[in-house]
Amino acid sequence: MPLTDFGADELARYRPESPAPHDFDAFWRRTLDEARAQGGAVKAERVTERFRLHTVEVDDVRFPGWNGEPVAAWLLRPRGAEGPLPVVVTYLGYCAGRGLPTEHLFWSAAGYAQLVVDSRGQGHDTPDRTQGDGTQWVEGFMTRGIDSPENHYHRRLITDCARAVDAVADLPGLDAGRIVVTGGSQGGGLALAVAGLLGERVAAVMPDVPFLCHFRQAVQIAGDGPYRELVNYLRWHSRDKVEQTFATLDYLDGVHFAQRATAPALFGVALMDPVCPPATVYAAFNHYVGEDLTMTVWPFADHSSGCGSTPPTQLEWLAERGLAPER
Amino acid sequence: MPLTDFGADELARYRPESPAPHDFDAFWRRTLDEARAQGGAVKAERVTERFRLHTVEVDDVRFPGWNGEPVAAWLLRPRGAEGPLPVVVTYLGYCAGRGLPTEHLFWSAAGYAQLVVDSRGQGHDTPDRTQGDGTQWVEGFMTRGIDSPENHYHRRLITDCARAVDAVADLPGLDAGRIVVTGGSQGGGLALAVAGLLGERVAAVMPDVPFLCHFRQAVQIAGDGPYRELVNYLRWHSRDKVEQTFATLDYLDGVHFAQRATAPALFGVALMDPVCPPATVYAAFNHYVGEDLTMTVWPFADHSSGCGSTPPTQLEWLAERGLAPER
Amino acid sequence: MPLTDFGADELARYRPESPAPHDFDAFWRRTLDEARAQGGAVKAERVTERFRLHTVEVDDVRFPGWNGEPVAAWLLRPRGAEGPLPVVVTYLGYCAGRGLPTEHLFWSAAGYAQLVVDSRGQGHDTPDRTQGDGTQWVEGFMTRGIDSPENHYHRRLITDCARAVDAVADLPGLDAGRIVVTGGSQGGGLALAVAGLLGERVAAVMPDVPFLCHFRQAVQIAGDGPYRELVNYLRWHSRDKVEQTFATLDYLDGVHFAQRATAPALFGVALMDPVCPPATVYAAFNHYVGEDLTMTVWPFADHSSGCGSTPPTQLEWLAERGLAPER
Amino acid sequence: MPLTDFGADELARYRPESPAPHDFDAFWRRTLDEARAQGGAVKAERVTERFRLHTVEVDDVRFPGWNGEPVAAWLLRPRGAEGPLPVVVTYLGYCAGRGLPTEHLFWSAAGYAQLVVDSRGQGHDTPDRTQGDGTQWVEGFMTRGIDSPENHYHRRLITDCARAVDAVADLPGLDAGRIVVTGGSQGGGLALAVAGLLGERVAAVMPDVPFLCHFRQAVQIAGDGPYRELVNYLRWHSRDKVEQTFATLDYLDGVHFAQRATAPALFGVALMDPVCPPATVYAAFNHYVGEDLTMTVWPFADHSSGCGSTPPTQLEWLAERGLAPER
Amino acid sequence: MPLTDFGADELARYRPESPAPHDFDAFWRRTLDEARAQGGAVKAERVTERFRLHTVEVDDVRFPGWNGEPVAAWLLRPRGAEGPLPVVVTYLGYCAGRGLPTEHLFWSAAGYAQLVVDSRGQGHDTPDRTQGDGTQWVEGFMTRGIDSPENHYHRRLITDCARAVDAVADLPGLDAGRIVVTGGSQGGGLALAVAGLLGERVAAVMPDVPFLCHFRQAVQIAGDGPYRELVNYLRWHSRDKVEQTFATLDYLDGVHFAQRATAPALFGVALMDPVCPPATVYAAFNHYVGEDLTMTVWPFADHSSGCGSTPPTQLEWLAERGLAPER
Amino acid sequence: MPLTDFGADELARYRPESPAPHDFDAFWRRTLDEARAQGGAVKAERVTERFRLHTVEVDDVRFPGWNGEPVAAWLLRPRGAEGPLPVVVTYLGYCAGRGLPTEHLFWSAAGYAQLVVDSRGQGHDTPDRTQGDGTQWVEGFMTRGIDSPENHYHRRLITDCARAVDAVADLPGLDAGRIVVTGGSQGGGLALAVAGLLGERVAAVMPDVPFLCHFRQAVQIAGDGPYRELVNYLRWHSRDKVEQTFATLDYLDGVHFAQRATAPALFGVALMDPVCPPATVYAAFNHYVGEDLTMTVWPFADHSSGCGSTPPTQLEWLAERGLAPER
Repeated sequence: MPLTDFGADELARYRPESPAPHDFDAFWRRTLDEARAQGGAVKAERVTERFRLHTVEVDDVRFPGWNGEPVAAWLLRPRGAEGPLPVVVTYLGYCAGRGLPTEHLFWSAAGYAQLVVDSRGQGHDTPDRTQGDGTQWVEGFMTRGIDSPENHYHRRLITDCARAVDAVADLPGLDAGRIVVTGGSQGGGLALAVAGLLGERVAAVMPDVPFLCHFRQAVQIAGDGPYRELVNYLRWHSRDKVEQTFATLDYLDGVHFAQRATAPALFGVALMDPVCPPATVYAAFNHYVGEDLTMTVWPFADHSSGCGSTPPTQLEWLAERGLAPER
Repeated sequence: MPLTDFGADELARYRPESPAPHDFDAFWRRTLDEARAQGGAVKAERVTERFRLHTVEVDDVRFPGWNGEPVAAWLLRPRGAEGPLPVVVTYLGYCAGRGLPTEHLFWSAAGYAQLVVDSRGQGHDTPDRTQGDGTQWVEGFMTRGIDSPENHYHRRLITDCARAVDAVADLPGLDAGRIVVTGGSQGGGLALAVAGLLGERVAAVMPDVPFLCHFRQAVQIAGDGPYRELVNYLRWHSRDKVEQTFATLDYLDGVHFAQRATAPALFGVALMDPVCPPATVYAAFNHYVGEDLTMTVWPFADHSSGCGSTPPTQLEWLAERGLAPER
Repeated sequence: MPLTDFGADELARYRPESPAPHDFDAFWRRTLDEARAQGGAVKAERVTERFRLHTVEVDDVRFPGWNGEPVAAWLLRPRGAEGPLPVVVTYLGYCAGRGLPTEHLFWSAAGYAQLVVDSRGQGHDTPDRTQGDGTQWVEGFMTRGIDSPENHYHRRLITDCARAVDAVADLPGLDAGRIVVTGGSQGGGLALAVAGLLGERVAAVMPDVPFLCHFRQAVQIAGDGPYRELVNYLRWHSRDKVEQTFATLDYLDGVHFAQRATAPALFGVALMDPVCPPATVYAAFNHYVGEDLTMTVWPFADHSSGCGSTPPTQLEWLAERGLAPER
Repeated sequence: MPLTDFGADELARYRPESPAPHDFDAFWRRTLDEARAQGGAVKAERVTERFRLHTVEVDDVRFPGWNGEPVAAWLLRPRGAEGPLPVVVTYLGYCAGRGLPTEHLFWSAAGYAQLVVDSRGQGHDTPDRTQGDGTQWVEGFMTRGIDSPENHYHRRLITDCARAVDAVADLPGLDAGRIVVTGGSQGGGLALAVAGLLGERVAAVMPDVPFLCHFRQAVQIAGDGPYRELVNYLRWHSRDKVEQTFATLDYLDGVHFAQRATAPALFGVALMDPVCPPATVYAAFNHYVGEDLTMTVWPFADHSSGCGSTPPTQLEWLAERGLAPER
Repeated sequence: MPLTDFGADELARYRPESPAPHDFDAFWRRTLDEARAQGGAVKAERVTERFRLHTVEVDDVRFPGWNGEPVAAWLLRPRGAEGPLPVVVTYLGYCAGRGLPTEHLFWSAAGYAQLVVDSRGQGHDTPDRTQGDGTQWVEGFMTRGIDSPENHYHRRLITDCARAVDAVADLPGLDAGRIVVTGGSQGGGLALAVAGLLGERVAAVMPDVPFLCHFRQAVQIAGDGPYRELVNYLRWHSRDKVEQTFATLDYLDGVHFAQRATAPALFGVALMDPVCPPATVYAAFNHYVGEDLTMTVWPFADHSSGCGSTPPTQLEWLAERGLAPER
Repeated sequence: MPLTDFGADELARYRPESPAPHDFDAFWRRTLDEARAQGGAVKAERVTERFRLHTVEVDDVRFPGWNGEPVAAWLLRPRGAEGPLPVVVTYLGYCAGRGLPTEHLFWSAAGYAQLVVDSRGQGHDTPDRTQGDGTQWVEGFMTRGIDSPENHYHRRLITDCARAVDAVADLPGLDAGRIVVTGGSQGGGLALAVAGLLGERVAAVMPDVPFLCHFRQAVQIAGDGPYRELVNYLRWHSRDKVEQTFATLDYLDGVHFAQRATAPALFGVALMDPVCPPATVYAAFNHYVGEDLTMTVWPFADHSSGCGSTPPTQLEWLAERGLAPER
């Protein structure tokens, strides 16, 4: 496939107007406050033996997320490592769940603790029971609760993701001062959201080809992937719900989180990506507030971006910022 | 596209073994009993003027469905017609809702009353709030509650559909002795289910290219459409949930409803249909108990089957059975 | 699919130069004069009973079209309505014919008379015997008679459509002062042509995603649909017939009819429509002469545009202009 | 793509029942008699210079075909060759015309005369004016006149092709005792038809991946190509015209011509051909009457069969049968 | 996509005749003898630091393969583990190379040593300089040297793979008595080949959806993937090289290696896999000589088979056979 | 498909900056010098009888190409023609070889000698033994030797093509003062390269939809065809090899050859060509040095451009320039 939207030069300058709703900060403050007020305990069960692992210690974690509901996560760390360890919190791509811990062996092999956060409803282990009153929520999660920011699925999921960072303090041997949030696609959008919400509590953010950015443009240019769910929905509702839909999405837009995020940031973008078009990634990148800001460009890649090259690139970038684990 | 599975001769003989679960009848008796026990009133609001209609009287109906929850429906009838009128109850195709009453003008023009039953979650006006604890319910409704027949979406939807027939008695001017149930695709599967559940209360059933039939075979041959949701789900769960999945679906299978249904029946099947493969339609047809049984074969059609020719064909068939409205 | 061509703002300003041939008006005057000179009677056969309809009176009509040849139409009206009734004349999409009257129940239910005009050659009931001497007329109707405006298929079809309006005067109970012409896709192009040809005899025109507009641009941007027939033809004839081809099409171009049409007009356009790209629709819209001019924009729709929402929208718009039937 | 229908062994045995209509021979005798009775002159204009050719002499021929109408052909022969020369009469694939003589240089280079016969309506130079009264003849030629064998397009085209053989006698320097008919796809079906109609006047027939064979099976298995036009037509007419359609096609079926053809025959078949499925080719081959019968099998080819290898293969086969031109 | 070829029952019985060439064993004995005769040293460079890994020790290995040429491999083992360790030798899928060691962290985390063997020409680090005299080797590796078993690419690659097992003895800390060979797709075919060649030196073999099996059938049913390269090649050479091509491939066919392999074996197969159709996998499985033979069936999977579930399944199966590493 | 990149007007002005490497001329001088220094004889074997041709004399030629390796070619000329004849040297499209001489009958029929030059590796008869040390050369020839201009496949192929012109002098009866080089797609790129390398020894050049032009842009806009091989390669190497890749391709770019070529030139371009996008063709055209420069534009064609119309167009253009053969 050819270039998705613009060439590299034009993208570097692409910074569209995108004001956040006036009560954006209040909305999220209230959302997090309410979730925290629900309380709930962080639980961890040692499952290393079940997976027959030798070099990695694995805990099957449940932490309280949105509405205090238990959210599943895997906690992996190098076996026998003395802490406190820097922690990589990983959020997941669209419609993937946390899977098995054996699918997440990179960061612990590199000496980090890693918390892999399940996506409610999308993975095996974390139900998303609440779904509000809306209907015609076909085809997945993008239109689940599209009628209001209060009800939208990603409000709940972002809350879970922020609460995952809260949970780090309750897990022994982790260094809450060195929390890195990351993920690809939906996971990248979630990492960006958490960085925008939690400020200095996030030591670094690494969103790779992030989804959930610049919705108003994304629905007009994405040729594939979950932005298309919104197009399909709006097709049936274009007489009466377009503005309401975007009003909801404005509370979930990575551009608005970027306008608030200050942690050192390493973005990734693929110029032939029809799922998360580069213009939408640059829209967030070019609004990002933090000054330690790097873009990894994959000029010929589609949505698979850097594949296996991405984690070592991130590892190197973290080390340059003093976030490597001690030997 | 060529023939989907078998030629016409082989299909006519295709009657695979397909025993229903031993407690199938008990399950459904309990399900309907519980729904009816919830009670709830049937409400109808006259909306003819809102739609500027002259020859049709339209009511916006809410009747109590699963768990007593209000289900939306349109009731259309010829304006000024003296009742009691025979009633066509129409169920809808996958991911369509009741839409506007102006999209359903055939049966009232032919002198019938018609009740168009919304599909919970799929249409605008009927939420499906309950979704149980399961996860990985991506891509729509087929895997919503797949963990058990208690929780499956189609248990709730079939219950709504049966309760729609109950509601007829509460709507003035309708003849509860002449209730015809019909629909295409998902609507056909629902009509078949209702015929299997309500016995002689259904005067005739007309399932066109019915979905929800012979799941164990359907997932192996369907090349397109919602049976593929099950394949995608089973792909990720084939180590541990295949039998549980089919055990759930066995309670929803049109073959098993056909094994109990006795009303005069007019099926439709399209031999080049990759969505509801003909073998799955014949599996239900060849198990159908009732003896007044007709198959309309569209040998060159895909899932659109007879298009605009289907309703007049059904009208004629009903008249031959004494189910025409009086002039 | 993403946006087909331009964004909403640019489309609103898109008004390309497109001069009609100098003898455009003479060509069409002569064409209509010749057709009318052929005479021929309008015939109507009552077929209500055949279709078992109760609320609608249906006539199977033949009226004289191009060359005086009989053109089939359905005339539907509310049973028992006293006239004279306002009339909606409906033209059809590409390669559809008038089908069955039971497929056209909206306007009569709303109190209008409706005349559904068959498309010669495309439907069951109206042959297009004449096809001139040209060859390589593969793939349908766009290149049938492409060698000259005299011979082109759409000259004959447009003439039929204009003559359908003439026929209204010969059908009892219709109000020739309230004739509305409409249609989608090809039907929209035909409605626009009739509005351009018949001036004040048309009380309103409602072209939805009209085809047959701005051919010179359409062949360069349409990704699907019958404009592609022209591309396929020109591919084989690009050495010698490009200009002749467009010279022929200039006599059939909706932009040129729009430059002459004055009736109140309600257009529809879909911004993700690869069949009738929005730029071609706006080219006609922005050249439209009449001042009572409305565009319904479906920003996320493909060629199916507003689906079932379109007729109620049109009904409302007509009522606002005093064109509602009496109660 | 995998194998289209059967493996090689099963194909070799595939000989389905396929009785010709009882008046098949009478129909065609009358058809040819009427065409011949129309008379008409064979004309040839020397155009070698226009195409700047040195080694080939080219005539632009018009011969009388169906209804005596002039059919275009190119006659190519080696420049300066003394006759009488054996003649290869070439019929063309679907929707190709005779094109330019420079696209047909093989047989004259090999010492033969070649007559390339235009397909009425499909090429530039031979109109097909008559098209009868039928309608819904969308998408090309397969359904043009489908209502009866009298009116079907291929009745006219086959007549042209037979009359092309008649015309050989009127062209100087050709040996009417050594006429070979050939073609690929539609051209192969036409060659087979001519061999079945003209008996011993044809010295050899070489149908490559012939179209127009075993229609009743072809419409059920062809995945692509013009057999699909019939499927699309029958989809809309499956209630009332299936048998009439096949009754028409029975007069045009290569299987029935094969049941009458006796000339030495070289067929070609491609086992991965979705356009002219191998089962349909073998159906004709296995019914072929003549005993000098060869099949060239391309086990891995699609509809392009042997590409550039086919003509040398045919040349060799002709030489083995004493049909090589003299040096 | 529906089932690729047969249902589960028929597959379980599918054991087609497939005799190996009479000199198959001699061919391979000579091939391995010659490679070993070339000698060459095994070299290993410690690169753990370069990849910033903590729990894994990584060596960048070069061992002598075909013609003594250096073949790249990664050797990973748990850091600080005392040997000798059981070793998993991993071969790679088509057109993947060994990539980065960080993409292969499973087996070392489970306490094994793992040797990841680069595929010559396909990966970054191992050229395939020799390519013989053949031409038309388009589209990759399947037709590189197709003219004879001596020259075929996979002769060289299989030799590399067998020599990788030889190399284990030269790497310190590994237990040459517990060598397990495995891989998916091409890697599965290679593992099977090594098991067939090296007999008891292989302690277990785990081919997942193996490629390179039952070529004569595979080319007729594979709908996608590298078997299609052979179809494309044979399309152009079907007149003269079909038998030569299969004669070459007979020396590389997994069915023939299975007829010689005795190690405990765990196969994987996906019933909706168009790349390595299940019939070809069962052809090898049902010919396998060894008696400790297990098939993991993924009934709804395509070529991605069990995804992340496969390695834990294999780990468990190895443990049951006493091949788990010591704690 | 719609227009590939720009409209006709913009293309006519499209002349991007594209400086050749500073040592471009030296590189190629050295390359040709070395090839010529290898010497080698031109051999021709008369094969007319083998192909049973009458009007054409055919020689199976081997001439020394890159590294003195024998390159296959067909030499065709009108039988009995007295020389010296003007010669058309034809280069071939991607992954086609010279095939059979019977596939190349146009130019000899028009009185020219024609030399059809095999493409090493791509055709049957000319191996490309050398392939250097690079790896990951999947999918054909574009990345074979991509590591340096020294090693790239097209360096060898272009050298063969230039040496084909040298060989003309060694073949009797040909006029080395009237050598025309031509080809389509890859053949067009090769013809352009030879024109740039050999200056006045080329009497005319006719590149049709040339490939190998303006690589840096081509990889960003080509939607299909072999430029995509480069995209696939760069996807995996975008961290470290992008600039090296383009540095290699700069030595093979038709834009740079055009900057040196002076012979009269007839280009062809297709505006709907996704394989060789029109912008890349115009980039070479608008940099072409020679002043007798013509573009044939096929505004509605895809990569098949003018099909059978191209050779007569070229024939005419040559005649206008005094390059017609004598009668």
